Amino acid sequence: MDLRDAIRTIPDYPKPGILFRDITTLLGDARAFRRSVDQLVAPWAGGKIDKIAGIEARGFILGGAVAHQLSSGFVPIRKKGKLPHTTVRIAYSLEYGLDEMEMHEDAVAAGERVILVDDLIATGGTATAAVQLLRQMGAEVVAACFVIDLPDLGGADRLRAMGVDVRTLVAFEGH
Amino acid sequence: MDLRDAIRTIPDYPKPGILFRDITTLLGDARAFRRSVDQLVAPWAGGKIDKIAGIEARGFILGGAVAHQLSSGFVPIRKKGKLPHTTVRIAYSLEYGLDEMEMHEDAVAAGERVILVDDLIATGGTATAAVQLLRQMGAEVVAACFVIDLPDLGGADRLRAMGVDVRTLVAFEGH
Repeated sequence: MDLRDAIRTIPDYPKPGILFRDITTLLGDARAFRRSVDQLVAPWAGGKIDKIAGIEARGFILGGAVAHQLSSGFVPIRKKGKLPHTTVRIAYSLEYGLDEMEMHEDAVAAGERVILVDDLIATGGTATAAVQLLRQMGAEVVAACFVIDLPDLGGADRLRAMGVDVRTLVAFEGH
Repeated sequence: MDLRDAIRTIPDYPKPGILFRDITTLLGDARAFRRSVDQLVAPWAGGKIDKIAGIEARGFILGGAVAHQLSSGFVPIRKKGKLPHTTVRIAYSLEYGLDEMEMHEDAVAAGERVILVDDLIATGGTATAAVQLLRQMGAEVVAACFVIDLPDLGGADRLRAMGVDVRTLVAFEGH
């Protein structure tokens, strides 16, 4: 099974000229979903990972499965205003303007080993901000895992330049 | 371990007089998260479940883990405008006004056995709409699973009145 075949491409979404890589077809395919989760975290299957941090919203699906696979806790990184308790927050750049993401202030403890999970890495705007936020809380970011990489947009390289171990399963070039 | 102890209660959130049941502390506790997932779907551990349908956003976390546990596919039920492909859609009542949720039109096939997952059932507005949407697509809704039940708000009973098998793990009375 090639995981690439389980990912649907939608032309001109969300705007003309963009090829949107739709992971919902992979998630809906039981074998492809399971294989993705298993392959994503195979390097850490034996070790101790305290928390999986998932980025809202698709990162919650994969992150929940990965946390179950590794018997880790799960920590949500959410858009601002969604978490009920006291939060820590970081601003990050979008294509147009700024946005903020946040975590509960007690979501990770200093020294905890955390893996960041999302479905896709493009420019890395959200992922690099998430790594900064986790490190600010004292977490050790062991790795960042994504099913899909758009390498031409440079996000994985940006994470590596921050000293993060990056793992991806399927690359789509020429984005 | 009592799962109830892993759930944080936040008074006066999102508004005065409401006791908000915060599941993030349970999710962050590796043992409590794992136990919740295992207990939620224990009755179906041996059987064939084609898809887990998770409701955005916290239902994605538990739903992803449950799908991994049962080796099922995962289907997201999202707020309108978030899914890239052609959708089917249903309106449902909020406390004030109406909202809509949607799924991809090819997310489930007729006759597929589906379990609906969310973190909490209160009045059941979103869950009953999700069941209607799944049935409209021809799915067999085998069960609806929630970690937290607020029984005084009647959502679980509303689902049962629709003929849905409802499973919950922790009830908070007197909401």
